[in-house]
Amino acid sequence: MESGPAGYPDAVTLLTPARLELVALTRRLVDAILTAESEETQLHATAAELARLVEGLESRAPLATESRPMERRHADYLPRSPLVGELNAVAPPFEYEVRDRRLRATGLFSAAHEGPPGYVHGGWIALAFDEALGIANVAGSNPGMTARLTIRYRRPTPLRTPLVLEAWTERVEGRRIHTVGRIAAGDLVTAEAEGIFVNIGAERALEYFGERPATPEPTDPLP
Amino acid sequence: MESGPAGYPDAVTLLTPARLELVALTRRLVDAILTAESEETQLHATAAELARLVEGLESRAPLATESRPMERRHADYLPRSPLVGELNAVAPPFEYEVRDRRLRATGLFSAAHEGPPGYVHGGWIALAFDEALGIANVAGSNPGMTARLTIRYRRPTPLRTPLVLEAWTERVEGRRIHTVGRIAAGDLVTAEAEGIFVNIGAERALEYFGERPATPEPTDPLP
Repeated sequence: MESGPAGYPDAVTLLTPARLELVALTRRLVDAILTAESEETQLHATAAELARLVEGLESRAPLATESRPMERRHADYLPRSPLVGELNAVAPPFEYEVRDRRLRATGLFSAAHEGPPGYVHGGWIALAFDEALGIANVAGSNPGMTARLTIRYRRPTPLRTPLVLEAWTERVEGRRIHTVGRIAAGDLVTAEAEGIFVNIGAERALEYFGERPATPEPTDPLP
Repeated sequence: MESGPAGYPDAVTLLTPARLELVALTRRLVDAILTAESEETQLHATAAELARLVEGLESRAPLATESRPMERRHADYLPRSPLVGELNAVAPPFEYEVRDRRLRATGLFSAAHEGPPGYVHGGWIALAFDEALGIANVAGSNPGMTARLTIRYRRPTPLRTPLVLEAWTERVEGRRIHTVGRIAAGDLVTAEAEGIFVNIGAERALEYFGERPATPEPTDPLP
């Protein structure tokens, strides 16, 4: 695995045991803030200690986007994915595998992802589909940017319940990639999605992203 | 403002200065984990201290969904909204106002919400629309659950850049509510959305949510 220029860890080197431990604890922290009963004085004391920890981390030079030159392939983005990202504390996270170019992701949503009491927020369902359909496209060697995404909500999706999200590329017409997916709790499909993704090409990619490739390279291997 | 049964704070009493301070710090923590350069030994030490803080919060009995009986109105959900939620560290968060039944939300996305380098993840755009369109419906006294949501991505939405998200109910046909929205960075509209929401009625609400009302009460005041 290549590493970034001196002084700037790339996305891969950010994936260390200690940072992953911090992510796991931060997920629990986000949850506890939303759910833990506590005295105001205890919360104040906790906040003071947390402030010290955060300031310690922030005292190191933050990595600007420009400092991540190794983030060139789709696999390099995935650690910070809002759905499957091991480095992203807002991700539930889901685990996934690809078989026969079909994505199957499993996981559950918790307090930070709640909409109506006891159910997943519809926005998180939409977010999960956007990411899952995109990964399915890469898995099928049809990477693209989302042009249009439609979610059909069949019924509420339960919180803190194992879910299965499936996604696959249905067909490719020129630069347009048609992709579909569904989420189920057990045998019950709670939501479905269809997306049109577009391979934006090198020129538009340069306009949007400068020197960086905008879309994953077609030869991009999945982890 | 009413308070919950003895021993269980309601959503409103969770909104305390210390808890809000914890949320703000947790947002910075999520960001720092994704961006701060740091030695593995320092990260390990930080994780050990964070573990102690999290365990302290978790040692208090967590509030189950059933322990939030006061979360009856849409305004009671909003503190944990993934877009505007003051208690939700995964929310960017956006601030918003409603004038003439039109929602105008402003804010910016940061590291946890990144898709392609330097741009907002398309999934977060979808999430933002779902929430914003829903709030706009409540503002127009047309609350409903999302049945279908379509997002059109016009071009990438820049990260760490002030954005304006507008949403409004376009028309109501029986129990179907048609709602639209758009996100702009300056004069540039980067994404548009249209949603169909459904007032599910009392019977379906009971099926989904038990004793709780599934949808905000039509008379629900906005904060």
